[in-house]
Order: sequence, then C-alpha cells, then structure tokens
Amino acid sequence: MSNQLIEANLRGQDGHGIANISNYVTRIKEGRMRFDVEVKMVRETPSSALIDGNWSFGHIAANRAMKVAIEKAKRHTVSIVGIRNVRDIGMLANYPMMALKHDMIGVTMCNSLAQVAPYGGRAKKLGTNALCIAIPAKEENPIVLDMATAVVAGRRLRSMYKAGIRKVPEGWIIDSEGRPTTDLEVFMKGEGVLLPFGGYKGFGLSVVVDLLAGALTGAGCSCTDPLFQNSGVVMSVLNIESFVSVEEFKKRVDEAIISLKSTPTAPGFKEILLPGEPEYRSSEKMIREGIDIDDETWRNIESIAKELNLDISS
Amino acid sequence: MSNQLIEANLRGQDGHGIANISNYVTRIKEGRMRFDVEVKMVRETPSSALIDGNWSFGHIAANRAMKVAIEKAKRHTVSIVGIRNVRDIGMLANYPMMALKHDMIGVTMCNSLAQVAPYGGRAKKLGTNALCIAIPAKEENPIVLDMATAVVAGRRLRSMYKAGIRKVPEGWIIDSEGRPTTDLEVFMKGEGVLLPFGGYKGFGLSVVVDLLAGALTGAGCSCTDPLFQNSGVVMSVLNIESFVSVEEFKKRVDEAIISLKSTPTAPGFKEILLPGEPEYRSSEKMIREGIDIDDETWRNIESIAKELNLDISS
Repeated sequence: MSNQLIEANLRGQDGHGIANISNYVTRIKEGRMRFDVEVKMVRETPSSALIDGNWSFGHIAANRAMKVAIEKAKRHTVSIVGIRNVRDIGMLANYPMMALKHDMIGVTMCNSLAQVAPYGGRAKKLGTNALCIAIPAKEENPIVLDMATAVVAGRRLRSMYKAGIRKVPEGWIIDSEGRPTTDLEVFMKGEGVLLPFGGYKGFGLSVVVDLLAGALTGAGCSCTDPLFQNSGVVMSVLNIESFVSVEEFKKRVDEAIISLKSTPTAPGFKEILLPGEPEYRSSEKMIREGIDIDDETWRNIESIAKELNLDISS
Repeated sequence: MSNQLIEANLRGQDGHGIANISNYVTRIKEGRMRFDVEVKMVRETPSSALIDGNWSFGHIAANRAMKVAIEKAKRHTVSIVGIRNVRDIGMLANYPMMALKHDMIGVTMCNSLAQVAPYGGRAKKLGTNALCIAIPAKEENPIVLDMATAVVAGRRLRSMYKAGIRKVPEGWIIDSEGRPTTDLEVFMKGEGVLLPFGGYKGFGLSVVVDLLAGALTGAGCSCTDPLFQNSGVVMSVLNIESFVSVEEFKKRVDEAIISLKSTPTAPGFKEILLPGEPEYRSSEKMIREGIDIDDETWRNIESIAKELNLDISS
C-alpha cells in the first residue's frame, strides 16, 4: 500500500500520495476504514469476479482485484473484476500498470462522490468518475491514459487552493446557479460544481463509468446518491497473445508512438506528449533527485510516527 | 445491411445512412469492396476472435463479429472480437445495440483515415477513432454513447458543407499551420485538420482506440499510415448476469437515468439529454413521420435502381 502512495508522488499525482496518510489514520481511528478485515469474493466465474472490499483499504482490495483479473486473463483472454465497499483506491494508474508487467492491457474505472454537473445541468450529480488504460510498448514508454471525466479533479483544485491559487481557467467550474466562474473560493465553499471534460461526450463517458463501476458492482452510482461514499471499481485485463504475439504488438505500439511524436507542432507547443509521458518524466526525475514533500505533509507524518512510536529518521 | 443504413438515417446520422449506397456501388464496380467473398476467422479462443473482413462489406463483417461476441459472452461472461480488412462499418451504434437485445452491455471501437491532429500537433495523424457503448435499461431508453474522439466527425462537416454552411464554431478545426480557423472551405480543400475533443484527454482516448482497433487486430493504426484505408474494429460484450441479475441491474440504470434527468438545468439548457436520447427521439419521430431523404441521394438511388433494373416505386 505504501508503494502505491509513493508511486503516486513519483508520478506527480501528489493528491493520491503520502499526504493521505494522515486522512487514513483519522479514518481508521473513526472506524470508517479498517485494516483488520479481509476482502471477500462475492461471486466468481472463470473470467470474472465481484469483490467486497469490506471497508478495508481500497488500495489493498484493488491490488487483489487486479491480480485476480491478470490471472483470469492469462487463462481466458479477457477478464473483468468489480469491487464494492471501498472508499478510495488512490491513483488509478497503479492497477492497470500491474498488467503491463505481464505484457497485457489493463483497464480500471472508478466512480466517486458527486461533484460534477451533467452536461447542461447545474447540480452535483456525478463523481469525477475516472478511467485508466495501460498499453505496453517495446522500447518506448507504455501508453498510460489516466484521466478523470471532469475537466479537473476536485483533488487537484484543493491542492491548487492549498498552494495559494484563487483563480482557475474558464470552463472548469460553474456556481450553484450554473453560471461560469473562475473563482476557486466558490468551489472551496462547496457552492461550485465541476464540469465534465469535452462537453456532452465527457459527460457520456462519466455516465458509462458510473454505471459500470456503480450499477454492475452494486457499489451504487454517484448520480443517484449525492452523499455517495462508496467507490465502485471495475478492472479489466486483456491478453494480447490471443490476437497477435506480444513482440509484434509492442512493435506496432512503438511505431504508433514514434509516428505521433514526429507530428509537427501547433503554435505554442514544443512537442507532442503521449498519455502517461508527463508522469514517466516526473517519475524519472524524482527517482534521480528525490520526492519533494510539502512541510505540512511531513509534519503530519512525523506526528503520526511519534504517536505510533515509529522511527522514521533513517 | 440495408437495415443498418436505414437505422442510421432513423437515428439522425445521415452520413452513415442510405446516401452511401452510391459510394458502395462505385466501390464494388472498382473492385475495392466485394460482396462475393466470405469473412474469415483468423484466430479464435472461447472468449475471443479475430476476423478478417476480406474487403467484403464492413457492415456484414461487423454484424458477424458482434454475433460471435454475444455468443461468447453468454458462455464466458466477457468477450472480445477484432476485425481487420474492412473499409467502413457504418454507424457504430448498430453493433453494441445488438447486445442490448440479449440484455448485455456492448462496446465497439473503430479507427479510420487520419484527419485529426494529436493534441499540440498540426498534421493529420489520427482517425476520428470512434467508440460506442450500449447499456440496457428497464423502462427508460438504454444508454447508447456513440461518439467520435474528434470534436466533430469529418462526415458531419461534409454534410454541413453540402447544406451550404461555410463557418464552423471555434475549436473544431485548425489550418495546416496549426492556427485555429472557422472556415469550412479550409477543411474541404484538404488543408484543415480536425481537433480531438476535450484536449489531451480526447487525444488520449483516440490513441487508445487506435491501438486497440489497429494494433491488436493488425488492421494498422491511423497514426502510422496517413493513407490508411483499413478500418480496425474491436467489439466487446459483457454478460451482466455474472455480476448481478439483469432485472436488478436495469432497475439501477433506470434510477441513474431518472436522477440525472431531474438535475436542475444551467442557463441556456432546457433539459439534460442522456447519451443516445437525441437519437431515440429522432428515430421515434421518423418512424411516425417518415425519413427525410435529400433530392440528390434519392436521384442517385433511382439511377442505380434503373441501371440494375430494380423496381423501387412501391
């Protein structure tokens, strides 16, 4: 689990990183998250599974689910595994990237607390309902598309606010009357509503993620319950070998990447960045130079360590 | 096959409708499409298949592929079927909607001729690489998300031009220097490049569709070959029963739809329209009032009928 938090920091997704440790400790103290329970297999077929996270750590349940999905895909080409009763599985990319190590394609979708308006609406009805797809390459970095279906994740807005930012670009949020606003305070006061990315298409994808992650698993949909505190998750793994040799497939992916990277750029752009590329760069840089942790996060971790009598000085 | 064309007209997607009959007749005469060949099963597992369309009608190959995917999903929960060597499978929604009749979830992705720039680029590198996902509901209309990963499909721009429109909204196309333009002539002269929807996220989805539909099937990727004339297709079907009863699932989908439709609207919007809803309305209206066919299309069909000695007067 700590690996998953650190991996998020490495990939520049601090909102899913070790800053969450203090939240998790609080949730454990309040009994809202438990680490003394086992996840349960609710239903299983040779190529599918439904897992009850039992309000344990979502990261652990999701890790288990992806392992199950990988094993099933090895034997049956394509698998699908759902999870219900977890609160938060952290950075989505953690799980589909596990499939990459087995030369397979991984997919994860997850719904969450309603904070996004449907296209044309002005109330919080959908989570930032995210999806991640990881596709292996040969010499190039794998393609890892990890995206919220909102223009921006609420988590990122809160990080921006923490960093002193008060204005956001147009098209990110609306106020409770549905009027466009750039005032981040409006969002922080709970009166702002996030917009889906790409208009009705991004809205459509959000609905699909909500139904697959929520209705299929029984976790519930963000759009039906504004106080939604469950995260429904679906994972899918595809075994490339049933279609073409892994070698040949990866060669084709490399060719596609090289072709896309060679595109002449539009004014204002220096290069074409592929899905996952900024995160791979961030990761390489931090492995070289160390992870930058903000003071507040570090103070929190130190005080938890002291309380639990853990030595973190080394 | 004629059903698939008519269904496209009914759903308001005239670009995939009977206006194509004259193109298809031309392609047959030139030997670029054939109806005297069989599609071939290249590779098969209990839950997957790779089909060679053999340059027959893409609609027929895609129909076959979805039938195979449905049968496999009935027995093995989730299936994936790829197609290569077809030129055009028409309106994507035709296929996932076949899964709805079996109370299953259907997915289709398809890549196509490069006419879209990668995010930050200014050359045609990606097809409008579309995806369609159909999810059954109980009393409500099913969710049918059918979308190109470009802001707008080239087909629609050509229809608009034919209808006399010369200006398009900002953010749809750029010129060959990567500068934003609203001049539809630029696109029609072949100097315009379409943009992905929703910036880098839509671009990322386009890359994923290209790799799944193109690299996995061997059809080739639109991003590697600008003269790409193959359409790679992947279909997937999911059997809901492996997770939850169809009744319960559809009830949950209905609840989600009702909740989303009840969202208060933002200024300028009269109602929340769900994915597939405009198409269902179009279809109901045309079934009642008849399909509106433009004069040019009808003249073409009449002249083909005359040539082939067919009586279409009834």
